[in-house]
Amino acid sequence: MTDTGSPSPSRRSLLGWGGAGLALGAAAAGGAAAMARTEDGTEPAGSAIAFHGPHQAGIATPVQDRLHFAAFDVTTDDRDAFVQLLKDWTAAARRMTAGHTVGEGAYGGLAEAPPDDTGEALGLKPSRLTLTIGFGPSLFEKFDLTDHRPEALADLPKFAGDNLDKNRSGGDLCVQACADDPQVAVHAVRNLARIGFGKVVIRWSQLGFGKTSSTTPEAQTPRNLMGFKDGTRNIAGTEPDRLKKFVWVDEKDGPRWMEGGSYLVARRIRMHIETWDRTSLQEQEDIFGRDKGEGAPVGKAKERDEPFLKAMKPDAHVRLAHPDTNHGATILRRGYSFTDGTDGLGRLDAGLFFLAYQRDVRKGFIPIQRSLAADALNEYIQHVGSALFAIPPGVRDQDDWWGRTLFSEEA
Amino acid sequence: MTDTGSPSPSRRSLLGWGGAGLALGAAAAGGAAAMARTEDGTEPAGSAIAFHGPHQAGIATPVQDRLHFAAFDVTTDDRDAFVQLLKDWTAAARRMTAGHTVGEGAYGGLAEAPPDDTGEALGLKPSRLTLTIGFGPSLFEKFDLTDHRPEALADLPKFAGDNLDKNRSGGDLCVQACADDPQVAVHAVRNLARIGFGKVVIRWSQLGFGKTSSTTPEAQTPRNLMGFKDGTRNIAGTEPDRLKKFVWVDEKDGPRWMEGGSYLVARRIRMHIETWDRTSLQEQEDIFGRDKGEGAPVGKAKERDEPFLKAMKPDAHVRLAHPDTNHGATILRRGYSFTDGTDGLGRLDAGLFFLAYQRDVRKGFIPIQRSLAADALNEYIQHVGSALFAIPPGVRDQDDWWGRTLFSEEA
Ligand code: HEM
Ligand code: HEM
Repeated sequence: MTDTGSPSPSRRSLLGWGGAGLALGAAAAGGAAAMARTEDGTEPAGSAIAFHGPHQAGIATPVQDRLHFAAFDVTTDDRDAFVQLLKDWTAAARRMTAGHTVGEGAYGGLAEAPPDDTGEALGLKPSRLTLTIGFGPSLFEKFDLTDHRPEALADLPKFAGDNLDKNRSGGDLCVQACADDPQVAVHAVRNLARIGFGKVVIRWSQLGFGKTSSTTPEAQTPRNLMGFKDGTRNIAGTEPDRLKKFVWVDEKDGPRWMEGGSYLVARRIRMHIETWDRTSLQEQEDIFGRDKGEGAPVGKAKERDEPFLKAMKPDAHVRLAHPDTNHGATILRRGYSFTDGTDGLGRLDAGLFFLAYQRDVRKGFIPIQRSLAADALNEYIQHVGSALFAIPPGVRDQDDWWGRTLFSEEA
Repeated sequence: MTDTGSPSPSRRSLLGWGGAGLALGAAAAGGAAAMARTEDGTEPAGSAIAFHGPHQAGIATPVQDRLHFAAFDVTTDDRDAFVQLLKDWTAAARRMTAGHTVGEGAYGGLAEAPPDDTGEALGLKPSRLTLTIGFGPSLFEKFDLTDHRPEALADLPKFAGDNLDKNRSGGDLCVQACADDPQVAVHAVRNLARIGFGKVVIRWSQLGFGKTSSTTPEAQTPRNLMGFKDGTRNIAGTEPDRLKKFVWVDEKDGPRWMEGGSYLVARRIRMHIETWDRTSLQEQEDIFGRDKGEGAPVGKAKERDEPFLKAMKPDAHVRLAHPDTNHGATILRRGYSFTDGTDGLGRLDAGLFFLAYQRDVRKGFIPIQRSLAADALNEYIQHVGSALFAIPPGVRDQDDWWGRTLFSEEA
């Protein structure tokens, strides 16, 4: 007889397991506060980002390296069960963003039960994990919420060139997980999905491997898969005035439950990489209205120089996307590059998973994307997925939970 | 009239572009030699790994964080054209692994031509990029090479439980790109595919986001998506005797062109994550024969303690995979976790992209995998992709090229 059936190895293993969780917890407790800041004002890659605050983290937060984005459909019509799920998710998100396991080691302390946490992030740093929840238009059809749907969460029209795949679009809920370590982001989404078993199911998910925007102006601007610096003229996390003006819903906007929140448009944009790669440097630069090496606007020397739109071709991307062309419309971009293997024709299924935050979709993504109908870039890209979410305000403290303002008050 | 048509902005931009390449080159020149080593003897994440040597890098090299693996089919039957491609690939790989762009900035210095390099890795560090080429069994059917196919590159039998998808299996060639930054790995595969246009086409590709083996015993052992430490008992890059014995083809083995090479088995192994997550801790630990927290073998206290196989259940994975159960069969594992979104049923398409290097497939993967027919783990996994490659020896110097020993000599 072997000794595997005896209690001792499992207890020891249980201790090992719980012990690792505790060690992690201790490291995380020091977290954001104790760790030194890096030169560009961002947290070091391993540290924890505060979960509580007036706004959800993951929007104005300096962009982390990796993304796992998941859209969920609600499968229960029991409102109480759904509210309980939001509370359970909040508790788990609070722990995971601090670098803890979900729950305290093995479930109920019993080797006979599945562990609370799936374990693959044990021993990894908090990695600046942020978890950001959103509510899709279809959620408001459920649970008698139609009156609460914000007007600023306006349905997107069909745009020129859209070729949307239903299986990569929509969703009652979303969770955006960003972290410097992909295993930490994947672990978080997986554990939320697991907690939601029987109440929600993942509709689609997207991994992003390279940020394409930095929301810290001091950092080196990352490059997208077309090889251009992306995110140069973005709203920075360090610009409270512009965040207030263009990103955060305020008390005048209504509905009240959205105060401190924002709206998110997600678009899966496939790039025709192979065609792009056969385009001349001159044409590539004309298309964006910026040069490839430095990222400077046409006729200017430096990346951060003010673009002179009239020097650009009329169909240049930057010219058409610029606020001056769109009555001031301005969004916060937070997209990621993706590569999901190859399609049936041996072409890389790669592109930009575009994420834009704004105070009102009607004054942000919609007018800009309409203007981009004339974009020279359209020959090389195609929008293949689309989703829209109301991003509720932040979780204020230990007793608060995701969506409380919508689900527990008469807003 | 705008000034975009005039030569000056494009020349300036060309300089900017070339300049960035030079800066990178300079950083890389210091590379592996100049940069300090880290505590565990591995290169720092940003540095360059030597491309030249008796063996290809990417096998005994300490495992980098990310993977982009691509299998190609050859579409030309012009042998000279194919040999030229191998030379062009070698030149590009030599530059990219050192942190340079492909070519010297813009193609021929002309803004009218597409740039040599697609650009998205500009400004990024070499990131310990390694590029490892392999030749699949089907390549030997082409170009009159049937006589040169090594016996040790034995066709894999159909194993119990295999559910292989042709679109994720096979390939005439492979390139394994490993780097600490996924954008660097993706950039490398994309640029090789681009150089191969008209001669080879990508058959399938796989992104791996988290290493599941470390080949440096001092480093913290990474965890796979089942939450267990993976790679504890592996061959380390620091064990020349075991590498010689189990990994590198030597002069006695034949064929001569393979001396210094190895053989690679790649298996895409899907995990039934949702079922696994509902399994008790005790059962999970029984299945592997190790505990989840520490990774110690059953009945032992520490991860590195010698496993006592008889203490494990007869169908425990470690017991069945251990050399003692398989007449000494030993492989070098170098796999990565993957998550490729969700399947039609809302389940994560996630698992282990298993990579095993060995001196002879008949004495490595095949007997171990046969033994694993009885593995308790099989209830939770399924092999859905399979491929096999002869990994030729390393590129010795500036004049040498990938595959020279096969294509230019009477071996
Ligand atoms: C694959 C698709 C896209 C690519 C490759 C791309 C790339 C770029 C690049 C390289 C820049 C210049 C650098 C910068 O300021 O960030 C830029 C700017 C910008 N893009 Fe895009 N973009 C894409 C899609 C979109 C979409 C769908 C929108 C919104 C509907 C958008 C809105 C903007 C805005 C607002 C700017 C800044 C314009 C300015 O103020 O100068 N982009 N984009
Ligand atoms: C999803 C599939 C698999 C998972 C999750 C998995 C996981 C593990 C784990 C956790 C260990 C113990 C730690 C260690 O020594 O690395 C291990 C050991 C091992 N596995 Fe796997 N494995 C998988 C598939 C395979 C396959 C297909 C093979 C080869 C055919 C294999 C061969 C081995 C070997 C040789 C050992 C070391 C045994 C020893 O010497 O103690 N594994 N595996």
